Amino acid sequence: MQMQIEMKHGAGGAATEALINSIFAQYFQNETLSRMEDGAVLPELTGSPVLTTDSFVVTPLFFPGGDIGRLSVCGTVNDLACMGARPLYLTAGFILEEGLELATLERVVQSLAATAQEAGVQIVAGDTKVVERRHAEVGTVTKENLGTGSTNLPSPGLFINTTGLGVRPAACRIGASQIKPGDRILVSGTLGDHHGCILATRLGLQTSLKSDCAPLNKLVAALLAAGIKIHTLRDMTRGGLATVANEVAAASGCKIIIEEDKVPVRAGVTSLCGLLGLEPYTMGNEGKLLIAVPADQAEAALHIIQAQPYGREAALVGTAHSGSGVFLQTALGGLRNLPPLRGEGLPRIC
Amino acid sequence: MQMQIEMKHGAGGAATEALINSIFAQYFQNETLSRMEDGAVLPELTGSPVLTTDSFVVTPLFFPGGDIGRLSVCGTVNDLACMGARPLYLTAGFILEEGLELATLERVVQSLAATAQEAGVQIVAGDTKVVERRHAEVGTVTKENLGTGSTNLPSPGLFINTTGLGVRPAACRIGASQIKPGDRILVSGTLGDHHGCILATRLGLQTSLKSDCAPLNKLVAALLAAGIKIHTLRDMTRGGLATVANEVAAASGCKIIIEEDKVPVRAGVTSLCGLLGLEPYTMGNEGKLLIAVPADQAEAALHIIQAQPYGREAALVGTAHSGSGVFLQTALGGLRNLPPLRGEGLPRIC
Repeated sequence: MQMQIEMKHGAGGAATEALINSIFAQYFQNETLSRMEDGAVLPELTGSPVLTTDSFVVTPLFFPGGDIGRLSVCGTVNDLACMGARPLYLTAGFILEEGLELATLERVVQSLAATAQEAGVQIVAGDTKVVERRHAEVGTVTKENLGTGSTNLPSPGLFINTTGLGVRPAACRIGASQIKPGDRILVSGTLGDHHGCILATRLGLQTSLKSDCAPLNKLVAALLAAGIKIHTLRDMTRGGLATVANEVAAASGCKIIIEEDKVPVRAGVTSLCGLLGLEPYTMGNEGKLLIAVPADQAEAALHIIQAQPYGREAALVGTAHSGSGVFLQTALGGLRNLPPLRGEGLPRIC
Repeated sequence: MQMQIEMKHGAGGAATEALINSIFAQYFQNETLSRMEDGAVLPELTGSPVLTTDSFVVTPLFFPGGDIGRLSVCGTVNDLACMGARPLYLTAGFILEEGLELATLERVVQSLAATAQEAGVQIVAGDTKVVERRHAEVGTVTKENLGTGSTNLPSPGLFINTTGLGVRPAACRIGASQIKPGDRILVSGTLGDHHGCILATRLGLQTSLKSDCAPLNKLVAALLAAGIKIHTLRDMTRGGLATVANEVAAASGCKIIIEEDKVPVRAGVTSLCGLLGLEPYTMGNEGKLLIAVPADQAEAALHIIQAQPYGREAALVGTAHSGSGVFLQTALGGLRNLPPLRGEGLPRIC
């Protein structure tokens, strides 16, 4: 029998301490954290501090291309990078379900730590709580399946909050409202991979889809180091390109036109979209940026991004104009409105 | 019928935006947050940044003296204050259960915002996710109660992560390891109130117990402003005085002796302890500090604390000596070991 999380692991006593020592301390070792204080005292910062927070509740916990641990670093690191900030520190708050296998937790923590190392950020503070196990959804517990061992109980899971602290130069003006008419719009790679992967995994489909979940701070740093005057940077997570483009178009007072035949989408995602009546424009990504740059730097920016490991399939996909709204220039030559995601979307993709 | 949280409120599209605008934006209004960027760009900091994180999973969500919203500010603000830091900014990550009443969420958000205002901290970044509803615990869903409407389903709840950023002077040395033999140990008020209140509420007992949940940063600031050379500050949350005293005794290489008859405990908590075989020393608090100061400043510190709204029942309760371990000098004159909380404790008190 494998060791499992019990309620006592969250009660703050000896069991909590044992859990911290046996799993968290092993992977998150650094000088700040090993002081075991109520908070992390950090070296003084140079520049404007940037703070961002994200909780991760993705199901399943493990999927092709990533897991909740990797995702919880990438999501927060990418939010900081999109503000033009250099990510420095993360906190990690774990909410564990009673019954979670310790081996599962360890895999997640190991992945989180490895991704933090890849991104060059330190985990400097943490917290662990335990909650009662979640059970079958309404409608799946029936008189018929109770007691037969075939109830549809989901495995115990976990949620992770990461909060990131970074710094950016005081003069940095990157922001959602900074797009100007004439700017070119780039995406850093193919759309819909994460969303498609999670969806296919949940549906039990055998596909080649893999999540694109990746830390993009080094890609952004390469653009800035080369003197690219980025106006706007956004990671296209929940709601995808369409939602993000609408947000930044509204914030900037611009119209954005996206050229359908320039948008990179993998064949597997296109097939899944065809099968399910979805569009890659509203599908979430976990390692893809929308980037707006002045037209005269667009080609240079594209080449810098394509030279990065997570940017090889980057493309110039659109242009900002005076006006409002987001439109798709279709391959047939028409122009149609590209609204943000409405209604359901796919819950729990991150 | 009341409005409830649905999965789509966490999917990142129009429903998420509507939720943010209708509830969060209303109570968390400030210039940084209203920019609606991926992260908060903050003014440059003077001093060492201090970062801390805490997740809150308390049940019930509302209890005499507080609620999960108030708690989620107090816990994080107090962690920063215990590092000698001035709390400045909080992030708030919400994980909502499907089916949660919007009115419940609004009460929590309102309380969180009011407590942040009381503590003088700004909520500068946030995140919202939605997860499927949790259901009855194993053993409470039976063939008998299914379908009768009397199943013991808990109401949909929510979890909150807050992460706090503060600053402290670069020269500040307050820490768990700083207690010196001869130091006096103070507690900022009565023990066990929060734990007793949650326990009594869960058991359905009619008592006068109220949680002590409070932000203590102003109390700490008053001590520092008066020139009190605080060696160690800890908030006595999960595991209570006994656990915290053992942690700091071990970190400092000291022995701590607590005088039983000096420890302030309310009559209601004493009664509950008698009834249930508990001890106030291992009960959690949410508005009480352990403070170690040089002996010659102990009386001055006590008076400063007692002049603060959340410190009126503060007391000098013990002394640090060379040696190791934590001991209780009983009212009868004996000396007994006071170990940290082991095993269960009461889960989900914060």
